[in-house]
Amino acid sequence: MCGVFGIYNHPEASNLSYLGLHALQHRGQESAGVVSNQDGVLHGVRSMGQVGKIFTRDALAQLPGTIAIGHVRYATAGGSLVQNIQPLWAQYRGRSVALAHNGNLVNEEVLREELEGEGAIFSSLSDTEVILQLMARSRRAEFAEQLADALSRVQGAYSMVFTTEDQLIAVRDPHGFRPLVLGRLKGAPETYVVASETTAFDLIEAERVRDIEPGEILTIDSTGLHSAHLPKAPRRFCVFEHVYFARPDSVLDGLSVYEARIAMGQQLAREHAVEADVVIPVPDSGVVAAMGYAQASGIPFQMGLIRNHYVGRTFIEPSDSIRHFGVRLKLNAVPQVLSGKRVVVVDDSIVRGTTSRKIVKLLRQAGATEVHVRISSPPVNGPCHYGIDTPTRAELVASTHSIEQITKTIEADSLGYLSADGLLAAVRSEGEKNFCDACFTGDYPLRRDRGSGRKQLRLIQV
Amino acid sequence: MCGVFGIYNHPEASNLSYLGLHALQHRGQESAGVVSNQDGVLHGVRSMGQVGKIFTRDALAQLPGTIAIGHVRYATAGGSLVQNIQPLWAQYRGRSVALAHNGNLVNEEVLREELEGEGAIFSSLSDTEVILQLMARSRRAEFAEQLADALSRVQGAYSMVFTTEDQLIAVRDPHGFRPLVLGRLKGAPETYVVASETTAFDLIEAERVRDIEPGEILTIDSTGLHSAHLPKAPRRFCVFEHVYFARPDSVLDGLSVYEARIAMGQQLAREHAVEADVVIPVPDSGVVAAMGYAQASGIPFQMGLIRNHYVGRTFIEPSDSIRHFGVRLKLNAVPQVLSGKRVVVVDDSIVRGTTSRKIVKLLRQAGATEVHVRISSPPVNGPCHYGIDTPTRAELVASTHSIEQITKTIEADSLGYLSADGLLAAVRSEGEKNFCDACFTGDYPLRRDRGSGRKQLRLIQV
Amino acid sequence: MCGVFGIYNHPEASNLSYLGLHALQHRGQESAGVVSNQDGVLHGVRSMGQVGKIFTRDALAQLPGTIAIGHVRYATAGGSLVQNIQPLWAQYRGRSVALAHNGNLVNEEVLREELEGEGAIFSSLSDTEVILQLMARSRRAEFAEQLADALSRVQGAYSMVFTTEDQLIAVRDPHGFRPLVLGRLKGAPETYVVASETTAFDLIEAERVRDIEPGEILTIDSTGLHSAHLPKAPRRFCVFEHVYFARPDSVLDGLSVYEARIAMGQQLAREHAVEADVVIPVPDSGVVAAMGYAQASGIPFQMGLIRNHYVGRTFIEPSDSIRHFGVRLKLNAVPQVLSGKRVVVVDDSIVRGTTSRKIVKLLRQAGATEVHVRISSPPVNGPCHYGIDTPTRAELVASTHSIEQITKTIEADSLGYLSADGLLAAVRSEGEKNFCDACFTGDYPLRRDRGSGRKQLRLIQV
Amino acid sequence: MCGVFGIYNHPEASNLSYLGLHALQHRGQESAGVVSNQDGVLHGVRSMGQVGKIFTRDALAQLPGTIAIGHVRYATAGGSLVQNIQPLWAQYRGRSVALAHNGNLVNEEVLREELEGEGAIFSSLSDTEVILQLMARSRRAEFAEQLADALSRVQGAYSMVFTTEDQLIAVRDPHGFRPLVLGRLKGAPETYVVASETTAFDLIEAERVRDIEPGEILTIDSTGLHSAHLPKAPRRFCVFEHVYFARPDSVLDGLSVYEARIAMGQQLAREHAVEADVVIPVPDSGVVAAMGYAQASGIPFQMGLIRNHYVGRTFIEPSDSIRHFGVRLKLNAVPQVLSGKRVVVVDDSIVRGTTSRKIVKLLRQAGATEVHVRISSPPVNGPCHYGIDTPTRAELVASTHSIEQITKTIEADSLGYLSADGLLAAVRSEGEKNFCDACFTGDYPLRRDRGSGRKQLRLIQV
Repeated sequence: MCGVFGIYNHPEASNLSYLGLHALQHRGQESAGVVSNQDGVLHGVRSMGQVGKIFTRDALAQLPGTIAIGHVRYATAGGSLVQNIQPLWAQYRGRSVALAHNGNLVNEEVLREELEGEGAIFSSLSDTEVILQLMARSRRAEFAEQLADALSRVQGAYSMVFTTEDQLIAVRDPHGFRPLVLGRLKGAPETYVVASETTAFDLIEAERVRDIEPGEILTIDSTGLHSAHLPKAPRRFCVFEHVYFARPDSVLDGLSVYEARIAMGQQLAREHAVEADVVIPVPDSGVVAAMGYAQASGIPFQMGLIRNHYVGRTFIEPSDSIRHFGVRLKLNAVPQVLSGKRVVVVDDSIVRGTTSRKIVKLLRQAGATEVHVRISSPPVNGPCHYGIDTPTRAELVASTHSIEQITKTIEADSLGYLSADGLLAAVRSEGEKNFCDACFTGDYPLRRDRGSGRKQLRLIQV
Repeated sequence: MCGVFGIYNHPEASNLSYLGLHALQHRGQESAGVVSNQDGVLHGVRSMGQVGKIFTRDALAQLPGTIAIGHVRYATAGGSLVQNIQPLWAQYRGRSVALAHNGNLVNEEVLREELEGEGAIFSSLSDTEVILQLMARSRRAEFAEQLADALSRVQGAYSMVFTTEDQLIAVRDPHGFRPLVLGRLKGAPETYVVASETTAFDLIEAERVRDIEPGEILTIDSTGLHSAHLPKAPRRFCVFEHVYFARPDSVLDGLSVYEARIAMGQQLAREHAVEADVVIPVPDSGVVAAMGYAQASGIPFQMGLIRNHYVGRTFIEPSDSIRHFGVRLKLNAVPQVLSGKRVVVVDDSIVRGTTSRKIVKLLRQAGATEVHVRISSPPVNGPCHYGIDTPTRAELVASTHSIEQITKTIEADSLGYLSADGLLAAVRSEGEKNFCDACFTGDYPLRRDRGSGRKQLRLIQV
Repeated sequence: MCGVFGIYNHPEASNLSYLGLHALQHRGQESAGVVSNQDGVLHGVRSMGQVGKIFTRDALAQLPGTIAIGHVRYATAGGSLVQNIQPLWAQYRGRSVALAHNGNLVNEEVLREELEGEGAIFSSLSDTEVILQLMARSRRAEFAEQLADALSRVQGAYSMVFTTEDQLIAVRDPHGFRPLVLGRLKGAPETYVVASETTAFDLIEAERVRDIEPGEILTIDSTGLHSAHLPKAPRRFCVFEHVYFARPDSVLDGLSVYEARIAMGQQLAREHAVEADVVIPVPDSGVVAAMGYAQASGIPFQMGLIRNHYVGRTFIEPSDSIRHFGVRLKLNAVPQVLSGKRVVVVDDSIVRGTTSRKIVKLLRQAGATEVHVRISSPPVNGPCHYGIDTPTRAELVASTHSIEQITKTIEADSLGYLSADGLLAAVRSEGEKNFCDACFTGDYPLRRDRGSGRKQLRLIQV
Repeated sequence: MCGVFGIYNHPEASNLSYLGLHALQHRGQESAGVVSNQDGVLHGVRSMGQVGKIFTRDALAQLPGTIAIGHVRYATAGGSLVQNIQPLWAQYRGRSVALAHNGNLVNEEVLREELEGEGAIFSSLSDTEVILQLMARSRRAEFAEQLADALSRVQGAYSMVFTTEDQLIAVRDPHGFRPLVLGRLKGAPETYVVASETTAFDLIEAERVRDIEPGEILTIDSTGLHSAHLPKAPRRFCVFEHVYFARPDSVLDGLSVYEARIAMGQQLAREHAVEADVVIPVPDSGVVAAMGYAQASGIPFQMGLIRNHYVGRTFIEPSDSIRHFGVRLKLNAVPQVLSGKRVVVVDDSIVRGTTSRKIVKLLRQAGATEVHVRISSPPVNGPCHYGIDTPTRAELVASTHSIEQITKTIEADSLGYLSADGLLAAVRSEGEKNFCDACFTGDYPLRRDRGSGRKQLRLIQV
């Protein structure tokens, strides 16, 4: 999970990139970076930490130019590796280029080995570097052509923005796994912006023009917008963007996340009705679906769990403590809402099941007489190969337990997952399926192709 | 606004204080501190910043002992002064004492001048230091007696916890302006805790025993609990604790904040009904009252504004920017909820009016056809002398504008404040008034008594 | 050990204080602070760490005014306590005052108990606070009178600068234990400066006017310089200021430290001659005395030990190491100077003896055939009560070992200490003794008067 | 200017690398890094700042393995670029490799363009990356062979250490511009160390075995030491290593720096004798040569200038100051040594001349009646292409001024530079010249070959 941003033709390009990244901060809090482009010379600031901490006035003053790209990065299981902070950049064929990538390649390891065999050196562990190496090997002259050459070899999920010389380039893989939207600054129609989500446009007062199409290579330069297209493939937009990654105020591939979540909750109520006194969400991600459930079921909606927003990355539990505080550090129950009530609690997903069990326990301690867990997505039983950092299959409770067993594990009175069909209906997928649902159906659009190699670098930040 | 915490008789006293402060973090994010007591020797860690950042494992390891007190402090208009970080501590008459104070004294300046006249030196600007000076002058032997002596001279709002030798002392002013609750650890009935709000108890699995009574000096030591009482005065609990300071999952003076806010919203709907399509809150503080409004009015509740929780103290707007982003950094509107709709937006209060105007504008830009602003408290037209950092009277829009004028200023279609009576009903104040409502009625229980002195110290942190 | 600085009547008072402290940095690296005075309002910046790190442009911008005082503080055995950072400040009798203190009071504990008995509260562990408390109790009107009242009760070593209202006050105890010099800015004769050492004057281009006299209270204000005097006492300037505390480029009480150290080395050569091939110093403090030894003995001077200046407070040895690197981190021997040579190595003092033993070993490993240790001061066998942080008597090797035993312990071929008379001659003490030599003669000018009290506060920085 | 270190076969390889870098800290204070090798997996910590600050216990704990290399880097004119911190590392042909480089390539730009033409991408601006790219293109199997292939294309100065799989490799360019020494841990003869200077060996108790030969590629692995050799070239060791870069306690290419500097001073006295009363050094780099001058001339040696060692990289002058403090922040004069004296002041070089002028002024202000400047190297009138960051030719005072003019500029009574022949004699260069003296003779062993390219990346640290 990452967020990307790009802006073309604005005297405050890096300021607006910083604000755009702020609006995408929910897509990654581990590291962030902005590269600006002043007359073809690239300037960059990248660091571990959140956007607001990295981009001080001094840092922003180091980023001149009218084109800029930015990136926020999520902590992944592989650890917090400094060398993987983006935007990446490189020089090849006399050209300086920087790029920000959201997604994951499935044949990166094979390509890396092949490229190493041809004499390439890799200075990061990022799969993104493979794309730059392939571009450098292209014999074509134009940047967009080199990019098309490179992408003809690459398989996987990618929504990317590049800057080089006097261009901003946005590209999205043919399946369109990850979102990427084109916008335009209000009152400045020649200032284009590109972002993972429209929420970045709202903050800087830009308006959505359209999505970058799956397989589109969009070049923005002084002569306007130019599109090239990679070979067509079935559309496979990640349905979990709607379930929980994206902000509810975003519009992704033409669909409002808010409306999708309301529909998920409504559908969930139809599929898993129960007699109850109150519907509550697990905040913040479950709030909108819970409202949908309440609307469809007619059961009153309440905020029975209050979230503490001060739990950040640095918050530690006392190491020598005799107790474990876990989910209590983040959530507290409201007895006035719950006491003596039959409670429906709506969450977006269950991963390992441990958090759900703790939440059920919290609710019972606050006086709930029954706890009915409702999940606004189907059981996740497989990993994601397209950019989401899921645990291994063995850790996914739904891959090894029946729903009945999970119900017992989390100590709920009942448990209902939204059906795969119900979810597709909620995201208005009609006729041919055009979402990726591999992690719960096993229908993987692209196979992961592991090489034989072993990654052998680890760079720690101090 | 501050939060205080104390714990008696637990081997992990400082760990639990740290967690208790985490649960009170909403009451102050500028600085925090914990003082622990090991066999009468006090150990302290205090710093600017949030609880999670200050209390690293190393810091907690510096805080041995079975008694501890803690404090979180809000940034006040006077600036971020290092010398005012609490807990305060001092030595007098061979006794080491530390205290954490929530509230504000109204005769501090007069007392300070009198004490200076008698040879006292002050090493902070905190009004709390006056209490220590008065205690040091008492000729009585017991700590609680010295404290009673001191408090007989002091007027104002104070909820305080002290530790000295082998005691934890909790005290609340006779009017009971600020909350203070007594609890007991579940499964450890001899481990007592004291906190500004019960939310701190929930996190550490303590149960509420009762409120510290207005005017009570409660001493907890190895012989148990001992209460002394200051002269009686009319109860004047700050009604704004219920309106917005406290967390909705807290119970204050026996009343659930959640229930109070639901009641405020319901009463607001009765007082200021309007034909509309949707009720939305200004998150997070307006959420519960908005739900109450929706329930009573029958108008559907939606989350039409989404909050960005990553806006922290360090977040800056680009200084050289041609635009001002203001409220957009924190709030974004959801057109799918608002477009073509008549909107009721519920907030807890209006201070200067500038934020409200921006919110109304955001809603209209997202397509709202009408915007009806509803406020779950009466117009604030006077300052608070009892611990809340309000702007001066001149800055309070309600002190200089009629409601009609405010409506125009914030560009709303209509504006409705909850009435004073309505608010008192919502907090179940029956018969004699037992809340402080001075900031909107002008009925100040205690007059502020300014001396002639001038504060002349300013200490900056580096 | 500390350093103090003060400046009166300069538009850049805090800038020049910062530079003055930089020139006094050798007197204390643990913490530093500056308080400036703008029309009677005091502004302060204090922090742990070195001067260059604390006083950023931002910090200096917080310090307006034409009067300022500053302090650098040495880490003491009692630990790095935040609450003891100076300058101290306080308000009393409507007056704001700040002070910086170098020295140590011997009757602080007794006075503290007495003052606590009268109702005083102490907010630090610093003995300096006692002086403020006593001033606050004075019934006299003028600051200098209050100070004289307070100092009539106090015994010990103090060189202090104060600022209050429109004054700069410099005061030195009647024995004159610690240095304090008055200067004047070149080209600005009405701008006065006060500092622990003249090296601070050199940096800011001030010229030395005279020493503050032992027992003098010098008030500098818009009407000029005004002196008052405490009762006379025998002059007892700390001879170790000349031996190693002060910088060699300073002039203390009229005597050049450089010349004093040359004379010590010469005298040492006369007292402890030896046949040898080369004289080398332990850098940096032993350099000048070693040159004196070489001059008087005719043995060539060389730099046989090279110092690594990058060993700072943060430098750590690997904790799990199988070896101990100790003195090697700071000093390395030069075999080309030492190999096959009979070496005289000159140091300023021996405390525990462990460092000396390691140095002797280093020299032998580099090929020295004989190592003759020469110390430019007598054996230290007692603690200092007047401001120097010496180990306890038990740790002082000279208090428990004969010179013969020490020679064996440090594995030297011979060991010679400068005699007490030789040292006094080197510092030109003629007729009546006017230096304090208590730590090697036991002739303590003032007895330490311990109270019964126990210090019970500890404040850690985060 | 940089320093490199490597160690093979020690359980505390990274701890000893950290200590080795500490002893090389004078060769670069801007950034530092260590890469350790545990069974072929590389682990790295690199950061801006000094060694003691970067390598905390936590950082060192991240660096397991029995092989390690390290690097300290000097701030260069090009600015403080994060992407140039070393050791560099990369993956190619399934192999992970890290390297630390001291020196500068003269045909880097041409090679970079050629490699880019073949499809290489560059992720740093470092010339070192060219070497990795060339190695990756080699078709040979062994690392040392690949390295030899690569180095056959490269021209310039390089002393480098590599680690890959189970090897430590040390290599030095055929001219031997920069030092590189092989050592062995005392008591552990199978633990080899490599360092820029022997001072690193002294700290960790290793003994010098021999220099890495110019043109030698030394591979250390479990089968022992294996040498390969690049084509022979005239030896051209940088004479300025002896003049001022290296520490006086180091032995470089078999010659003691201390002895070389003594000889320079003696020769300088013979070439530029003057009647004077005292010889003083500009500390610290001029100390040893000044002692040589004093010995040969018979004029007494004194420390007439005292250095303040607390001036670090963070130290700033007040920006709004009416005065400029410059060299005074670092040096102070001792009037007792200088007053009324004819002074010879010995420094190692003159670059722009501004510092020398300030020093002469300082000495005169302290009372010197005559100031004779003596420089222990010839006039530098050309840039260095082999790793030293000199100003451009235009800024070098000796490239545009005669010695007479420089004497006037710096306001000295006389000025004498050591002659080129005198310097060569001091470093015992007999028969054929075997030092590089290009910066003062213009005899450049290798021409700089600039490509047409433009470096277009800039990465700022936050």
